[in-house]
Amino acid sequence: MTLTRLPDTSALSAFFPDLELPDIELHDSLSRRKVIFEPGVPGKVGMYLCGPTVYSDAHLGHAKKEVAFDVIRRYLAHRGYAVRYVSNITDVGHLQNDSDDGEDKMLARAALERLEPIEVAEKYYWSFMDDMARLGVQRPSIQPRATGHIPEQIELIEELTRRGHAYEANGSVYFEVRSWPEYGKLSGRKLDDQEEGTREAVRGEKRDPRDFALWKRAEAGHIMRWQSPWGVGFPGWHIECSAMSLKYLGESFDIHGGGLDLEFPHHEAEIAQAEAAGHPFARYWMHNNMLTIGGEKMSKSKGNFTTLIDLFKRVDPQIVRFLLIGSHYRSITEFSEEGFVSAHSGYRRLHDALSETLRRLPGAPEKPGDPLLAQVRTHVSAFEAAMSDDFNTPRAVAALFNLTTDVNAALAGAAHQQSPGRDALEAARAAYLELGGSVLGLFAAGAGAVGAQDDTALVGTLMDVVLEARQHYRLSKQYAASDALRGKLAGVGVTVEDTRDGARWKR
Amino acid sequence: MTLTRLPDTSALSAFFPDLELPDIELHDSLSRRKVIFEPGVPGKVGMYLCGPTVYSDAHLGHAKKEVAFDVIRRYLAHRGYAVRYVSNITDVGHLQNDSDDGEDKMLARAALERLEPIEVAEKYYWSFMDDMARLGVQRPSIQPRATGHIPEQIELIEELTRRGHAYEANGSVYFEVRSWPEYGKLSGRKLDDQEEGTREAVRGEKRDPRDFALWKRAEAGHIMRWQSPWGVGFPGWHIECSAMSLKYLGESFDIHGGGLDLEFPHHEAEIAQAEAAGHPFARYWMHNNMLTIGGEKMSKSKGNFTTLIDLFKRVDPQIVRFLLIGSHYRSITEFSEEGFVSAHSGYRRLHDALSETLRRLPGAPEKPGDPLLAQVRTHVSAFEAAMSDDFNTPRAVAALFNLTTDVNAALAGAAHQQSPGRDALEAARAAYLELGGSVLGLFAAGAGAVGAQDDTALVGTLMDVVLEARQHYRLSKQYAASDALRGKLAGVGVTVEDTRDGARWKR
Repeated sequence: MTLTRLPDTSALSAFFPDLELPDIELHDSLSRRKVIFEPGVPGKVGMYLCGPTVYSDAHLGHAKKEVAFDVIRRYLAHRGYAVRYVSNITDVGHLQNDSDDGEDKMLARAALERLEPIEVAEKYYWSFMDDMARLGVQRPSIQPRATGHIPEQIELIEELTRRGHAYEANGSVYFEVRSWPEYGKLSGRKLDDQEEGTREAVRGEKRDPRDFALWKRAEAGHIMRWQSPWGVGFPGWHIECSAMSLKYLGESFDIHGGGLDLEFPHHEAEIAQAEAAGHPFARYWMHNNMLTIGGEKMSKSKGNFTTLIDLFKRVDPQIVRFLLIGSHYRSITEFSEEGFVSAHSGYRRLHDALSETLRRLPGAPEKPGDPLLAQVRTHVSAFEAAMSDDFNTPRAVAALFNLTTDVNAALAGAAHQQSPGRDALEAARAAYLELGGSVLGLFAAGAGAVGAQDDTALVGTLMDVVLEARQHYRLSKQYAASDALRGKLAGVGVTVEDTRDGARWKR
Repeated sequence: MTLTRLPDTSALSAFFPDLELPDIELHDSLSRRKVIFEPGVPGKVGMYLCGPTVYSDAHLGHAKKEVAFDVIRRYLAHRGYAVRYVSNITDVGHLQNDSDDGEDKMLARAALERLEPIEVAEKYYWSFMDDMARLGVQRPSIQPRATGHIPEQIELIEELTRRGHAYEANGSVYFEVRSWPEYGKLSGRKLDDQEEGTREAVRGEKRDPRDFALWKRAEAGHIMRWQSPWGVGFPGWHIECSAMSLKYLGESFDIHGGGLDLEFPHHEAEIAQAEAAGHPFARYWMHNNMLTIGGEKMSKSKGNFTTLIDLFKRVDPQIVRFLLIGSHYRSITEFSEEGFVSAHSGYRRLHDALSETLRRLPGAPEKPGDPLLAQVRTHVSAFEAAMSDDFNTPRAVAALFNLTTDVNAALAGAAHQQSPGRDALEAARAAYLELGGSVLGLFAAGAGAVGAQDDTALVGTLMDVVLEARQHYRLSKQYAASDALRGKLAGVGVTVEDTRDGARWKR
């Protein structure tokens, strides 16, 4: 059963109680097609997203993934589902180049910064969470850490060895790919495609070069280490996600998400680890595409990345978010400076129409049958259709722009004594705040922020006083004072525009 | 070796390079006297603070503890120590009334809120961290979770059983108090004082009623459970802190802190668990006193508490912090509404003097030998003496008030063409920002906050324009416009005062 009406808690449902919403369809990477989403338990959704490895500052590529799945989560909640959103923190060191040997990323960083590995993880965990708060990404319902789930990982590895899908060699344990014919079902890769380059010593331990590590023996000097039935070691890269998603969402949970770059081998391995141990795994798989710069994937290993911390020094995180949802999660987002310029002006267009709607509401007349109300309904419907169609955010944003065209026309008409009706303006406000705000995560200065002092009312009042003074200087022909005033405002990024309705200001 | 000079990174050391600082003395609960603090490793301090059990919103009592140790940590950093600050999150359910049976707090809350226990822990973890960010409490260097350290706890329990200080009974493991004569050395309690009321079934398992649980057998229906050498169960209340502090700080770490209410049995048990297993434990023990309301301890179990979330709706978190540091950490803080009023006016006095210092600095003349410079030195010295004397924050705040008296006198003199010199004002600024700011954690609107939009410059500029308009209205005798302006400012909490130096405004 899917939910095809807005829940009672929706502000929009008060204006459009009979609005029918389409079933939600999503592109399932496992079946390779668009399918109707049906949760395993009616009214509830269990979602797992592969989170960050916390050994350096997050970059725009991470932001694309996090925002993509945040919007999906928010849309499901908007449709009335109770969503449990689990996303992990990988704080155990893993190996460079994502193969089974090489240098441990966390240890390398710790040496560089003269910190203990777990202090590195803690530092970059907070860097990540702060960045995500700025982007308006909601916190996970549960955010398990790899180092916090060693017993669960060991238990799963023990199940796999008991069932004959894993074997021990020199204190390490490997998953035996040949023992599990379904290996490859997600990525569609044939076994022969999967060979990875590995060090000779590791190759010697594996029965097959495509086998992957579940548990690694800790060499002397490896700081992160735990006791296990196979001696002292640490978990392989893939096992944590199988163990933690099953623990917090149960078997056959609804949606597993992650970046396309994780589809193979990480997600393929996750499925094999869970299902070979007898635990049916995620029912739908969703993958976001990558972020490129000059046509190349933005990634730490290529060095062509912009950290979010640096980016936020010159671009408002809300604009970054708006830019990201401007392309579909399954499309490639090309990063460019021009992109920010156009995202900024687009965001501002929506924002200004919402501000003006809020400003006009208190004096709006009762006006039954206002055509704006029907227009709002059309755009809400288009928004819902877009989001129900594999979470098509660019089309959803387009619906908000179309809404804005109608709202602006109605508000401009108001100058000629044709003020839009209260009902229509309230519906428009609900559409902006619920669809643009709650679903897309826009219009939230410092979203997710803590302790942000809200100066909106103060600044609004001061600007009223300033605009009156400006008017006063002009009427009394004190042009020098008026010019000085304009200069001071420009110095803090405020511009004033004269419209038929009087002066309006913008930041 | 202690550090008795300010480090090179201190702004104050540039003004007072020869300032000698006293040794830091602290009251050690273990030796029951004030002692000179000597870190185990020169230049480094390892500190552990017992953190919250995250099953409900934090209240003022938690704030007192967190702010107390935050200030201690900040002062040690100010003196040049590299501080590793470890504070745990107890996210495993523990039993009501802190005895070895009764209802599990986390499970009870989960049932109440229809969430899984770990979702409850996650929710209140964030509530706690957000509250602490608002209070300006710095995040721990490492913040380990109890559920994330089950193997470490099991390992420590195994060491204790091997050494004959713990025994298993029906799948639970108890520490045998009679086997460890030093038990009681922290709290000074004799064994015979320690009997606790426990359920008959648990009493039957214990060899002595004062023995305490290291591991508890999980009954059917207990959701948080792990495999162990003694069957499926969960750790006892005390063991996590011994295991996690030793893991992240090593043996014989420097300072262990916590509330006085935890001294017995929790801290007593921590010492016994570590030292009976052969690991010398914390070298200094520090305990903060309680917060009372109407003379009674504020606590969840008594129900007489004010959650911080509610309090922050009407009191600025900075004022709460200022109120808390207004009493010594080892003194009882009595909560009263009048306390906030006087904290507010005290905080404002410091804040206004700092603002005025910053405002006057750009135009300040060179003025060698300005007596204000020597006065600043005196107050800095008094501040350092107070903080070195067992972190006496009330005396440290008094030093800042004395500084303010001299700064205000110097600035008032400026109206008579006796502007204070640039050097003196810069030293005063450094004193406010370094002692009041970095050490006491004041003057940070939305301290620790993320994404707070800073409107300070905008508001400042707008107020300049507004005050010019006010002046203009007055000169041109437009009293109605001038009155309207004053009314609007009052509506947003801004008042204007005419001084000999011109109009000044305050929020």
